[in-house]
Amino acid sequence: MGNRYRVVGQRVPKADAKIKAAGEAKFAADLAMPGMLWGKVLRSHLPHAKILNIDTSRAERLPGVRAVVTGMDFPAIKYGFLPTTRDQYPLCRDRVRYIGDELAAVAAIDKDIAEEALDLIRVEYEELPAVFDPEEAMLPGAPQLHDHVENNVSVQTHMNFGDVEQAFRDSHLVREDRFVTQSIVHGFIEPHASLVNWDASGKVTLQGSKQSPYIVYRNLARSLDIPPSKVRLISPYVGGGFGGKQEPLALDFAGAMLSKKSGRPVKIVYDQEEVLTAARRRHAMIIQIKTGVKDDGTITGVECKLIADGGAYASVGALSIYLAGAFIAVPFRVPNLKYDAYRAYTNKPFAGALRGHCLPQMRFAADQQLEMLGEDLGIDPLEIRLRNACQAGDVACNGFAITSCGLTESLDRTAEVLQWDKRASRRVQSGAKMRGVGIASNAQCTGARMGGHNAASAVIKVHEDGSVTLQTGSTDVGQGSETVLAQIVAEELGLDFHEVHVTQNDTEITPIDPGTYGSRVTFTSGNAARAAAADVRKQVFEFVAEKLEADPGDLEIGDHKVFVRGSPERGIPWLKAVRHSYYSMDTPLLGRGSATPGTGMVDMVTGVGNLSGAYSFGTQAAEVEVDTETGHVKILNMIVSHDSGYAINPLLTEGQQEGSVNIGEAQVLYEELPTDKGQILATSLHMYGMPSAADSPDQILTEHIETHDPAGPYGAKESGEGTSISTLPAIANAIYDAVGVRVYELPFTPEKLLKALEQ
Amino acid sequence: MGNRYRVVGQRVPKADAKIKAAGEAKFAADLAMPGMLWGKVLRSHLPHAKILNIDTSRAERLPGVRAVVTGMDFPAIKYGFLPTTRDQYPLCRDRVRYIGDELAAVAAIDKDIAEEALDLIRVEYEELPAVFDPEEAMLPGAPQLHDHVENNVSVQTHMNFGDVEQAFRDSHLVREDRFVTQSIVHGFIEPHASLVNWDASGKVTLQGSKQSPYIVYRNLARSLDIPPSKVRLISPYVGGGFGGKQEPLALDFAGAMLSKKSGRPVKIVYDQEEVLTAARRRHAMIIQIKTGVKDDGTITGVECKLIADGGAYASVGALSIYLAGAFIAVPFRVPNLKYDAYRAYTNKPFAGALRGHCLPQMRFAADQQLEMLGEDLGIDPLEIRLRNACQAGDVACNGFAITSCGLTESLDRTAEVLQWDKRASRRVQSGAKMRGVGIASNAQCTGARMGGHNAASAVIKVHEDGSVTLQTGSTDVGQGSETVLAQIVAEELGLDFHEVHVTQNDTEITPIDPGTYGSRVTFTSGNAARAAAADVRKQVFEFVAEKLEADPGDLEIGDHKVFVRGSPERGIPWLKAVRHSYYSMDTPLLGRGSATPGTGMVDMVTGVGNLSGAYSFGTQAAEVEVDTETGHVKILNMIVSHDSGYAINPLLTEGQQEGSVNIGEAQVLYEELPTDKGQILATSLHMYGMPSAADSPDQILTEHIETHDPAGPYGAKESGEGTSISTLPAIANAIYDAVGVRVYELPFTPEKLLKALEQ
Repeated sequence: MGNRYRVVGQRVPKADAKIKAAGEAKFAADLAMPGMLWGKVLRSHLPHAKILNIDTSRAERLPGVRAVVTGMDFPAIKYGFLPTTRDQYPLCRDRVRYIGDELAAVAAIDKDIAEEALDLIRVEYEELPAVFDPEEAMLPGAPQLHDHVENNVSVQTHMNFGDVEQAFRDSHLVREDRFVTQSIVHGFIEPHASLVNWDASGKVTLQGSKQSPYIVYRNLARSLDIPPSKVRLISPYVGGGFGGKQEPLALDFAGAMLSKKSGRPVKIVYDQEEVLTAARRRHAMIIQIKTGVKDDGTITGVECKLIADGGAYASVGALSIYLAGAFIAVPFRVPNLKYDAYRAYTNKPFAGALRGHCLPQMRFAADQQLEMLGEDLGIDPLEIRLRNACQAGDVACNGFAITSCGLTESLDRTAEVLQWDKRASRRVQSGAKMRGVGIASNAQCTGARMGGHNAASAVIKVHEDGSVTLQTGSTDVGQGSETVLAQIVAEELGLDFHEVHVTQNDTEITPIDPGTYGSRVTFTSGNAARAAAADVRKQVFEFVAEKLEADPGDLEIGDHKVFVRGSPERGIPWLKAVRHSYYSMDTPLLGRGSATPGTGMVDMVTGVGNLSGAYSFGTQAAEVEVDTETGHVKILNMIVSHDSGYAINPLLTEGQQEGSVNIGEAQVLYEELPTDKGQILATSLHMYGMPSAADSPDQILTEHIETHDPAGPYGAKESGEGTSISTLPAIANAIYDAVGVRVYELPFTPEKLLKALEQ
Repeated sequence: MGNRYRVVGQRVPKADAKIKAAGEAKFAADLAMPGMLWGKVLRSHLPHAKILNIDTSRAERLPGVRAVVTGMDFPAIKYGFLPTTRDQYPLCRDRVRYIGDELAAVAAIDKDIAEEALDLIRVEYEELPAVFDPEEAMLPGAPQLHDHVENNVSVQTHMNFGDVEQAFRDSHLVREDRFVTQSIVHGFIEPHASLVNWDASGKVTLQGSKQSPYIVYRNLARSLDIPPSKVRLISPYVGGGFGGKQEPLALDFAGAMLSKKSGRPVKIVYDQEEVLTAARRRHAMIIQIKTGVKDDGTITGVECKLIADGGAYASVGALSIYLAGAFIAVPFRVPNLKYDAYRAYTNKPFAGALRGHCLPQMRFAADQQLEMLGEDLGIDPLEIRLRNACQAGDVACNGFAITSCGLTESLDRTAEVLQWDKRASRRVQSGAKMRGVGIASNAQCTGARMGGHNAASAVIKVHEDGSVTLQTGSTDVGQGSETVLAQIVAEELGLDFHEVHVTQNDTEITPIDPGTYGSRVTFTSGNAARAAAADVRKQVFEFVAEKLEADPGDLEIGDHKVFVRGSPERGIPWLKAVRHSYYSMDTPLLGRGSATPGTGMVDMVTGVGNLSGAYSFGTQAAEVEVDTETGHVKILNMIVSHDSGYAINPLLTEGQQEGSVNIGEAQVLYEELPTDKGQILATSLHMYGMPSAADSPDQILTEHIETHDPAGPYGAKESGEGTSISTLPAIANAIYDAVGVRVYELPFTPEKLLKALEQ
């Protein structure tokens, strides 16, 4: 389809590219304020213990130290994702639950003194027995981490749609497999950092690395027991979030209280060891999955039991295990579904959201298993997917309403690009190196209603020179959302891209927005920006219509011009209209708009409900070369055919696909966080095994599948996470194609592969 | 009149009082950015010279210097107040016109290096003859400062209303006097400072001490030849403006260009000597004034010739001399008026706006002269004022439409408080000390239309906790306007004062506003804030009406409650309404509003037109004690009866009256800027003679005259400048009452007074 737009659909480079390339972009750790102190956090070195006493007196006396705080300095208010899962104090009050748990914090005139002061804090503990394995943690008699739940089950979900028992009875074939996935971290380059100032008026201003400032804002207010409007979150540039910068962290609370106590702004920057230890991570999972199919390969039902290793606190775990189950129902039709999930507390760092948020793990299991069922039935991997593919108009068993769906097209396109019919010819061997090809599919939400307020909102200020500033509450974490929003506004107002400026988030000023998660920004904040532009247009049309003696409803905006539809000669330049408003009418032009995800709430316990305003679909193919001598796997080629509805900026959606491929590849082949009795053994991204650019696939081809979702702006929907989901099974399937070995447990390291090849 | 409002009319302390008292408020000079350089400006030591060459090479080679700029680094675009008065380059290109004129600027890693580098810049001049006296400057053959005007007349105004010649012929008495007033400076404690960053994207962000950011914004864009929206002005706290922080200064242009050249943020802070030399000041004036009266003291006409000493550049001089003439027509009725004013270029630092903007000088002359005419006729000073006092409904000879006027009431109230009938008994003598009482009146505008865009605008963001943030484009320069605007919003939305936050100005984000000048903020920005609150109310009423099964038009907002008018029991709490909007309707609450001064443009050359949406009036009485041995004058008592329409915050309007009294007293008795051949001889406020708090009147009594102007918010109008006008003649009249000596030339120093007493 040709592009019928002027700015939307263009491969516009990121608006902040120059600033970032010049090294001028200020991230939270770069910020400074006059009189600013440096903060550091004291962490537990025991995995589980009662705190008997914390003696901070020696630290307080160290010259240069300005304040020391412990959990007792805060109101005894726990925070957490849901009212039912609030299990964490700003700093520990009575107990530590993992190695790295936060005990106290120090603010000093420099970082070295702050660190030195940490050593002077004496903590008296009573050590408690600890548990590190989620299955063990759920056994009777296991050490209990929290008093408010039994058997360390922090949250659980039980879905039951249709009759899966009957479905299995009606099946031609049923198979059950167990998959195990590891925990990985987000690997953003910018560490967590916050600069907090609790000023004399009682206002707490936090400039921090956050992807959903309003979530942190509400939590800070609640935990500090002050009105939300006494909290101000300001977003500097953010160096990647991937779901890891949603929630408040100890540095936010500690920074605030240290600032209050010292009367000075306090900056805390986590080092990489702290990021690896004390920030969120992906849930490690044990997935027991059972799928029935008819003889033609059609899925009859799925039963799944999931145990997720949650670590010491609940975080967003209720959502995590809901999502893992809900997305069994798509992208392949599952008429009957039973899902029982348990997230166990263990004495380890704790898990939350990470790109794809538990969908990659589940799809890793379900997609491989579907292919195995196909193999058992003699049905080609492409064919079994086509037979089960969701279609537009479907309502999945759990209530997901599929308004647009390019899955079949993405399968076809992938097969075409890959030349699927000739794939046997690609299964070549060269010495010890064997090649193979695998495919896999995904579905992902486009934003989700998360409880409370869900609308995105936008304000557009028109400047005297005709350019505009968009105030959005959404946060660009590097994905380029501000660029996309600017394209939308430029399109709607007939401007050029460079004439639209987008401001960074500031909860005091920018209009409210839920945050950057669940691939919602382009969809929801994009629709809000579009509505704000329409509001500007409406105001302009009113007075221009009078000038042109036309009906406002007959006007439209083109390239820097307001004119009568169909009669471009009956019009006035945009700049003239703007100037008329400002200088002759004394009327400033300000537009506002808001947009909702368009859905109701889902029940995260029963899984009932339509999560998202739109669902994206995609298929990808991996071509791998396995070195059977070294066990090393190289990705030669990755073909991504993703249905993002409509790519408002193909350059950026392609960037998202490539990023998704890399994060997925990292989980399949490389990354692992080894722990020993709760002690993380990696203190750097290098030790952790994060792959570098050199480990990226030799080639990534991206194909845009356009389905023009009715609710998305210009038809756009998710493009940032879907591909990260199918990358896991695509590579796993390709390895199987190459060497006939199935990947049941991640990561698939050379050692594991060699061992599997031996068997 | 009792207060019918909850928040408006209350003596609310300034919203930023705690922040400022705690020393936490950041002013421009306090700001810092990573990598920031310090800038300094090289100034001419000659009053008039051609620039033959500027050699910056040695300065550029000094280690630590990052950039040096001269006028040639800028586009050859002159800036100025009006298109016809653009006479200044960002830095001088070819000529310097006063000692202090800007030649070049340096940015270095610290201030000392920057200063050292200035010494290394070699300037080759060709000295030109200079002129320092405005009357001499206008003589044929005088050295010419600029090529675009003749006889150094930078601007002139000629008003001619009615027939003043005929009026004088019809008069019982005509007298003519000559008054001379000196130049004074604003005396704000915070010096001019700007931190400018020209970033890699081409955006120039200036954080500076500005009272009208949009004026600077437009000038920067024009002079740097970039679109206005590529300029962003952010206001930190501002430590006083008084008209002196309206215009762009060399530090703004130099900071921008140094930042562009160095690729680093650059901060320039003027020292006090620079503020005294290179910033604006009040026009020194020679006022030849001739007034005719009937035998009952009624004024028949006024003829006035004014010569203002403009200094080297035009600044806002066209407005200055217009204002001086226009305000002859009020507060006392002047049916016939002829006014010829000339502002001369001289080789001295140049003049602009200063609190009261040329009205104090003119009222100093006209009010004393009216009293002299009364004395000649045997009419009491109070009586002659009452007989000539403007009244509501008047349209002055120049077109000023008086919509509300408390002048007569202010005269009566002053007389009552002072016990005017017993004033003879206060004319006591104690040794060499003689006491006396004087009164004087004033009129002042409430905002003015200045050409181009004139509407103030406001956005209100309602937070989830029911509190709100007001985004206003106006700037609080310390007068407390944010407090007043917050009161208005609180009143309109039924909130408490502390539930309204006001953001500081940021041209990128806050809605457009002309700036803080002409006593316009409460009136115009206040009406805009009120309109924005009404917009919020309208949105809330719509859905609450549905809930209450009422008509939206029947709803009102009271104390945290939305209810049916007359039936407070049929209502819901404000917070519930807000939450309903956010959580049930997914609708963020954002209100917007704008307001205009409500007048058309005046012609500054002919003086025709109605300047302001409202005019304030006031009377004050001074009681002085003159030491006839030392010549020292002490103000014992000052009674201010000011018609501010309605005091939205009496504490703040009183503060404004007190400030006005002090700045007026300073001009009459203390301040002077001695110069020698263009060289300012004072390098500190101390040397300049700025009085301290100890020199303030022993007592200042303020009386509120309420006239409830129909256009002002709650009836409010000007309160920040009027009293500064009448303070001059009130003190002069009191001195005359005490010792029988008239003040014709300011300041009335002990030396001058003793000399006058001798004669």
